[in-house]
Amino acid sequence: MSPPRKSQIVPEVPFDKDGVHCGFLRLFHSVHRSAYGFIPIPIAVFRNGTGPTVLLTGGNHGDEYEGQIALANLVRSLDHTRISGRVIILPMLNFPAAMAGTRTSPIDEGNLNRSFPGDPDGTVTQQIAWFVANELIPLADATVDLHSGGSSLMYIPSALARRQADPDRAALSLRLLKAFAAPVAYLTAGGQGTGHGGTLSGAAATHGVVSLGSELGGSGTLTPAALRIAERGLRNVLVELGILPPEDRVPAEASTRILEVRGAQDFVYAAESGVYEPLVELGDTVKAGQPAARIHTPETPWREPATAQFLGDGFVLCKRVPGRTMRGDCLFHLGTDTGL
Amino acid sequence: MSPPRKSQIVPEVPFDKDGVHCGFLRLFHSVHRSAYGFIPIPIAVFRNGTGPTVLLTGGNHGDEYEGQIALANLVRSLDHTRISGRVIILPMLNFPAAMAGTRTSPIDEGNLNRSFPGDPDGTVTQQIAWFVANELIPLADATVDLHSGGSSLMYIPSALARRQADPDRAALSLRLLKAFAAPVAYLTAGGQGTGHGGTLSGAAATHGVVSLGSELGGSGTLTPAALRIAERGLRNVLVELGILPPEDRVPAEASTRILEVRGAQDFVYAAESGVYEPLVELGDTVKAGQPAARIHTPETPWREPATAQFLGDGFVLCKRVPGRTMRGDCLFHLGTDTGL
Amino acid sequence: MSPPRKSQIVPEVPFDKDGVHCGFLRLFHSVHRSAYGFIPIPIAVFRNGTGPTVLLTGGNHGDEYEGQIALANLVRSLDHTRISGRVIILPMLNFPAAMAGTRTSPIDEGNLNRSFPGDPDGTVTQQIAWFVANELIPLADATVDLHSGGSSLMYIPSALARRQADPDRAALSLRLLKAFAAPVAYLTAGGQGTGHGGTLSGAAATHGVVSLGSELGGSGTLTPAALRIAERGLRNVLVELGILPPEDRVPAEASTRILEVRGAQDFVYAAESGVYEPLVELGDTVKAGQPAARIHTPETPWREPATAQFLGDGFVLCKRVPGRTMRGDCLFHLGTDTGL
Amino acid sequence: MSPPRKSQIVPEVPFDKDGVHCGFLRLFHSVHRSAYGFIPIPIAVFRNGTGPTVLLTGGNHGDEYEGQIALANLVRSLDHTRISGRVIILPMLNFPAAMAGTRTSPIDEGNLNRSFPGDPDGTVTQQIAWFVANELIPLADATVDLHSGGSSLMYIPSALARRQADPDRAALSLRLLKAFAAPVAYLTAGGQGTGHGGTLSGAAATHGVVSLGSELGGSGTLTPAALRIAERGLRNVLVELGILPPEDRVPAEASTRILEVRGAQDFVYAAESGVYEPLVELGDTVKAGQPAARIHTPETPWREPATAQFLGDGFVLCKRVPGRTMRGDCLFHLGTDTGL
Amino acid sequence: MSPPRKSQIVPEVPFDKDGVHCGFLRLFHSVHRSAYGFIPIPIAVFRNGTGPTVLLTGGNHGDEYEGQIALANLVRSLDHTRISGRVIILPMLNFPAAMAGTRTSPIDEGNLNRSFPGDPDGTVTQQIAWFVANELIPLADATVDLHSGGSSLMYIPSALARRQADPDRAALSLRLLKAFAAPVAYLTAGGQGTGHGGTLSGAAATHGVVSLGSELGGSGTLTPAALRIAERGLRNVLVELGILPPEDRVPAEASTRILEVRGAQDFVYAAESGVYEPLVELGDTVKAGQPAARIHTPETPWREPATAQFLGDGFVLCKRVPGRTMRGDCLFHLGTDTGL
Amino acid sequence: MSPPRKSQIVPEVPFDKDGVHCGFLRLFHSVHRSAYGFIPIPIAVFRNGTGPTVLLTGGNHGDEYEGQIALANLVRSLDHTRISGRVIILPMLNFPAAMAGTRTSPIDEGNLNRSFPGDPDGTVTQQIAWFVANELIPLADATVDLHSGGSSLMYIPSALARRQADPDRAALSLRLLKAFAAPVAYLTAGGQGTGHGGTLSGAAATHGVVSLGSELGGSGTLTPAALRIAERGLRNVLVELGILPPEDRVPAEASTRILEVRGAQDFVYAAESGVYEPLVELGDTVKAGQPAARIHTPETPWREPATAQFLGDGFVLCKRVPGRTMRGDCLFHLGTDTGL
Repeated sequence: MSPPRKSQIVPEVPFDKDGVHCGFLRLFHSVHRSAYGFIPIPIAVFRNGTGPTVLLTGGNHGDEYEGQIALANLVRSLDHTRISGRVIILPMLNFPAAMAGTRTSPIDEGNLNRSFPGDPDGTVTQQIAWFVANELIPLADATVDLHSGGSSLMYIPSALARRQADPDRAALSLRLLKAFAAPVAYLTAGGQGTGHGGTLSGAAATHGVVSLGSELGGSGTLTPAALRIAERGLRNVLVELGILPPEDRVPAEASTRILEVRGAQDFVYAAESGVYEPLVELGDTVKAGQPAARIHTPETPWREPATAQFLGDGFVLCKRVPGRTMRGDCLFHLGTDTGL
Repeated sequence: MSPPRKSQIVPEVPFDKDGVHCGFLRLFHSVHRSAYGFIPIPIAVFRNGTGPTVLLTGGNHGDEYEGQIALANLVRSLDHTRISGRVIILPMLNFPAAMAGTRTSPIDEGNLNRSFPGDPDGTVTQQIAWFVANELIPLADATVDLHSGGSSLMYIPSALARRQADPDRAALSLRLLKAFAAPVAYLTAGGQGTGHGGTLSGAAATHGVVSLGSELGGSGTLTPAALRIAERGLRNVLVELGILPPEDRVPAEASTRILEVRGAQDFVYAAESGVYEPLVELGDTVKAGQPAARIHTPETPWREPATAQFLGDGFVLCKRVPGRTMRGDCLFHLGTDTGL
Repeated sequence: MSPPRKSQIVPEVPFDKDGVHCGFLRLFHSVHRSAYGFIPIPIAVFRNGTGPTVLLTGGNHGDEYEGQIALANLVRSLDHTRISGRVIILPMLNFPAAMAGTRTSPIDEGNLNRSFPGDPDGTVTQQIAWFVANELIPLADATVDLHSGGSSLMYIPSALARRQADPDRAALSLRLLKAFAAPVAYLTAGGQGTGHGGTLSGAAATHGVVSLGSELGGSGTLTPAALRIAERGLRNVLVELGILPPEDRVPAEASTRILEVRGAQDFVYAAESGVYEPLVELGDTVKAGQPAARIHTPETPWREPATAQFLGDGFVLCKRVPGRTMRGDCLFHLGTDTGL
Repeated sequence: MSPPRKSQIVPEVPFDKDGVHCGFLRLFHSVHRSAYGFIPIPIAVFRNGTGPTVLLTGGNHGDEYEGQIALANLVRSLDHTRISGRVIILPMLNFPAAMAGTRTSPIDEGNLNRSFPGDPDGTVTQQIAWFVANELIPLADATVDLHSGGSSLMYIPSALARRQADPDRAALSLRLLKAFAAPVAYLTAGGQGTGHGGTLSGAAATHGVVSLGSELGGSGTLTPAALRIAERGLRNVLVELGILPPEDRVPAEASTRILEVRGAQDFVYAAESGVYEPLVELGDTVKAGQPAARIHTPETPWREPATAQFLGDGFVLCKRVPGRTMRGDCLFHLGTDTGL
Repeated sequence: MSPPRKSQIVPEVPFDKDGVHCGFLRLFHSVHRSAYGFIPIPIAVFRNGTGPTVLLTGGNHGDEYEGQIALANLVRSLDHTRISGRVIILPMLNFPAAMAGTRTSPIDEGNLNRSFPGDPDGTVTQQIAWFVANELIPLADATVDLHSGGSSLMYIPSALARRQADPDRAALSLRLLKAFAAPVAYLTAGGQGTGHGGTLSGAAATHGVVSLGSELGGSGTLTPAALRIAERGLRNVLVELGILPPEDRVPAEASTRILEVRGAQDFVYAAESGVYEPLVELGDTVKAGQPAARIHTPETPWREPATAQFLGDGFVLCKRVPGRTMRGDCLFHLGTDTGL
Repeated sequence: MSPPRKSQIVPEVPFDKDGVHCGFLRLFHSVHRSAYGFIPIPIAVFRNGTGPTVLLTGGNHGDEYEGQIALANLVRSLDHTRISGRVIILPMLNFPAAMAGTRTSPIDEGNLNRSFPGDPDGTVTQQIAWFVANELIPLADATVDLHSGGSSLMYIPSALARRQADPDRAALSLRLLKAFAAPVAYLTAGGQGTGHGGTLSGAAATHGVVSLGSELGGSGTLTPAALRIAERGLRNVLVELGILPPEDRVPAEASTRILEVRGAQDFVYAAESGVYEPLVELGDTVKAGQPAARIHTPETPWREPATAQFLGDGFVLCKRVPGRTMRGDCLFHLGTDTGL
């Protein structure tokens, strides 16, 4: 097997020196407006003594803000003399998307979290994925990739992790999930007929690295409550990993309810195009067959709306935000209790 | 003074016949993809016996859905034999914007609610404004134009009305505002240095017609709670006007708190561009000088965010939704109690 | 009444000198790619001795080619020593649209034939309209504006003229219509609830100038047969006006059938959006109530298509071309015999 | 050799159960407007008893309508109890292109019929190609992919097939070609220096599956005559394959003339850019050296047009439609008699 | 005559108070991404004691940088206690264009310097023009509007002024032109068949206010040499007007050569489209009939280029920059000596 | 190792016949506006007797004009009877980019000089790269690829070559560099942390073919002086290679100064976004630590600009042109003397 091809991205910061190192990943991009320019992806490396390495990322999707701000705040507030190990922080991972406030990159329409493991000679988004998968994840013992629902979805603030076959990794995964201390957490098998290939967590799994995720809110906005959960979760994960001392743990108001998302039966999709009216709210408990939403066609107001139903029982974890909806759009997804 | 120029829009429905008449306003639009086509703006006219005329409009901004759906539901549910007078319903007033789910028209970028009184030979949006101002409003005793916050704003569900100098109109206005039975209502002077010229309510004022508005939610979504407020409000306004019988009134859980929006001092604008973090929530009561929001620049995460402050005391009626923000964007506006 | 404002367009050719003068109308347009550039609208003026002036235009809509090519051929073939009077030829009247092959201008989306009388300080399209209306039409005794169906419509090759109240103009109009010698000709009242304001023929009527039009084919293409009709028609109109000698008249195979288009009852519009299947063909004779077209939704192939019907009897003069169709698109229009 | 990678597309319908199964292929597409949505490609599977499988596809190019409508009509009219075997129908194969009425996909500009064998992790268009090539074609004994000329070309309604080296497949191919009963049919070697790689028929050939094609008209429109040919052709192919009983065969008015397209010598390309004037019509018989078309430049009307000539003798099978033409555009292609 | 309509723009700064006042003009613009936002046009007002008022503007065209930077530097360096009178500075007059680095506004494609006197209810660009024409120019005794050649032109650094009929204004104009101390200056009649209506200097003339302009370089870039000329020019104009004391005058290396631009005969336009090769350079002295440029068509490299000639004698003041050129683009313009 | 896949591009010209052969590479591109069209990339092949083959290319970036025009002039002026060997000329290598005047292709956004070795089944740009790399370079003994700075950069007119490990190729490279006779030449290692992979010169190196490059000016314009250098350089390289006789050599005014570009320390990048003010000019000699540029924010004119510095000593070979600049844009690069 040939060695992985080399990324063309040049980091301005060292990964192996103690101290705080702030700068940019230089992703060279030769275009009409700038022949020899680079895309400056911000990065901060905190390193002190020995200990594990954690990779913290936000802005994987550009319209998800809790992670971007919590990580920027962490860059300004983390005291590197208190840590044992290394913290690598990238608050705007898909930089072009994050600057535009869009899920996907305005340069190449790439959805970074469907682009792993990427391509070192590919599009801008593929180059970012390749660098993360081949040059950052191999340095890490754990990754935390902070997401929210983005412009089209709204979540009950949640942490999430992939189901792990390996018992040690499963145990660490569950410990981190609980340490994050969001009101809700869920386990997912990845994909399950919903096209979720190409994710950062999948790339971490390929390298045997435990990955934690979050869905902290959504609707393309940032809320004070979700930001507090993100900041507490980051601190507590650093404590749980032993990078920060135990006294830095931020206590939670309540224990985390741990759910799972099983697969297609937990999703409701729009069967028609039109204006979507939800019939339940986030946090509701629903039954199979219960009406979930109506799709209206006010361009023909005298026509009856179509109705969508839940396929199974569960807890409403996520709902679609935008009123205008097309056939095939996800309207809701549920979680079901695990007893973990 | 010369008579107003003639609209080129052709309605398919009569305005002066008893019964229910559903069809389209034909706005002819000769373009590459269709040389002799028209834009079909849905309209329904319910008429029975004698009584006042009310003009009910939604979709003035295309990304505000409560009005579109409440009016479509009304078209399907209103029993014209129960009414006395006339109800003219247009659920998708700026039809191209409403089909696109955007505030402004994708055809001409027109913001319909800044385009009154319009132009019968102008752009598509100006032609709609002209028709409403010159052919619909003159038929009406009152207008109800249902808005929400749209894609960029979120409101406490509210009804609103312009301050009226004429005491009779002021009294009717207040009666309708209370009848609508939203949790909150507010009075506005129009404009006040915020560029609010060219509105439908301004056009109504020009004709001496009382106009009621609403801001039912926002964020480009539709919520069950806001829809219920809209539907109740519409019923109760029809009752208050005497078009529906008193027994059709839907009771409210609580009386409406009546505020006013005074002017520039009630608004907070972004002083820098970046990612906006609100520091208060809708419904909070705030003081002058209190921090309202921070603007972050996660592309340079080591840089401190800028802070915006409230200029006066008040109740947080409206906040900005999207995280990405530019200097000059409205972040919040307040209302203050009137004692009405 | 104030005098008309002055056009900013500068013609490179004289209108009052004998001979052949070819050049451009300079429409100055200061944009990013050219600060002091002009849009070069080609024009040719042929003048010899005394006699009437005719204004010949093509490319009013940029995707209609018979006129553009017949007029370009005429510029190269007309012997100015054989004429008595003046022939002004503009083969690409809406030059930006004609260069793009689109109905409307790519610069300002302007439909030139809905923009008369224009504005000397307005958009590019409005400036063209103003120049034609205020500087060319006043020079003319008659205008011939050659159209086809464009990208969205296909016509039986036809000449057309507006109904004229003045008997002298009506007689000249009919003589020119017959001289043009297309298989079919029709009279139209202009507008009739189909939004046809702002046309060149309307501007000619304002100045008391007789105008002839054509609809020579369509579908965004050029056919040899339609081009021959256009070229014969132009020659014969020059003969009929006395500008060319009688021996230049090109004989027709058959006399022209003269129809009229009465109004909305002659049009069929799509009541739904989808893929349009015509059920009749150009040249068919149809009855009121006869099915005209079906609108299919192959994205839901198990759903029945909608059917549209003719509202009146008539001869199928025009049909829509593109399969994808939106509610409100014109699918057909009919003509009815006049006995003229 | 490694097994083919797995498609991420999830069909809602079974392929191995008797009965009629209608639904969608779910092609998950995570974008700004819908994070967990899928593109719903309609599919119908008819299965009864034993017998061959035929794959019927339309909308491979989105602006070709006869196939889309003939297949949608077949979905509604086919009685599955009369069939022996299996009929798999996809009327809108490149769904995003078909909804837009464009040859290529508005999502990724992909030309599906140049994208085979595709990529299961690639663009939307590549994912469709991969699914067809690796999951549908292997189920089939024959494929029928219905095309027309699209927006830029017009054809004499034709069936077509690739030349087959294998005598059995060649014989079946010829039988199906004749059964289809179009006025004209032709054999093609594929490619021949015209860049026709990546087609569905090429993918079928890779799997040893006989493929039939059609070119039923074009110009981006649908004609009643071409639709009748498509519907008869589909029925007769089902009969010829033994899926429908012999009595279902629809008789043709005349036998099919079988031509071949040999290669570059049968094509005429534009040597300059401008407005294209064809000098012959579809169905004409032409000689080498005969003028085929003129390219005009009406922006400089006094300039002579360029002329293009036929390189060989033949029958005019196909012509370009749009007037505006660029150097390198195909203007015509010919067929020559085979005596088959 | 009715009073001018009221601008909807709200300035954050006072114009009548001593001191330095920095802030924004709030141009309210209600769009999808911000319903109640304003466009923040930066403005600084310096006022001290009595004396004349000068209006200094840059960024009228957004891709002209010397003015933007010279004025920003002046805002930071001007000591208001040294002035007598008032200096109003707007470095980014067409703010949306200046932020985009384009000649015209990305919002409405408006060329601000062709939009005067504007419209208070019109497009964003028209609203800016109206505010300047009706609220700023009437405050001023003189205006200085700093331009460069922009993206498409390059100038010998020049000052310019309109020819004035009034002898006092003509004298002041000439004094300011010389005070500005650019290597070259020129007088222009405005317009002259080159479509230069709607300018800021024209609006100043309407109010009887003397206006000075500049063309400091171009090519969409900023050079140190041109910036020095701009900064010296601004200082010296303030001295010449008596706003700054005489000792602040910056000496020039040489006296200014004063030319005039007479009209169409001084301009060379491209007669064909292609790649433009200049045959002379800025600062050359040329003769009528001398070849000015060649237009190449490397897409057909074996074809001879077209040649353009100078129509009159003169000094090459301005040349086109971009290689790709269209018929009608200005390639050069000349100045001729005045002896002033 | 499998043989390289076959390009789908079809050349109209032979490469192995004596004489002059002009025509096009046919790159078939099946799109909405032309189903069977090709992109016509102009090519000329001059061949006479025996001798080396040189490949001359321009328009690799579409906004660099000296090469396009020098090569078009060479096509028209080269007397093939004077040559010994073969000259292959492509003046518009990335044809779609060159027709648009943009660095990258408007079809696929491809930067051809970052796309080597390309893909025969890939995008249009990748297909061009593949054809050059696999079908043209293998025919050549040397390549000359003429570049300028394009729209975003301006260079001191320079020739350049890659450093060669092989001493014979290094010697030939140096001879050609000197023969080209530009005022300046430089050696480069390729890439050096600036993302310069995928170039034509890299593809030549892979085949062991010596490649010469140039950077002749820039700013998206063409200057007479740079064109003369290009034309002399081409002649002299043909002489140096022995293709043209020695008497055809064009003498240079001065010998070439030979520099090298070492790597990241020779580049200055923008650390902030804004308007860029250079503080040095092309041709200056600078020191490490010297201020190179300021980045202004005139939208906040009272804010101090940021300053960028040179990292090392050197000669200013290249500067950025456009005023509007983003963080990461290259502002300058230096060369340092080699003593060669």
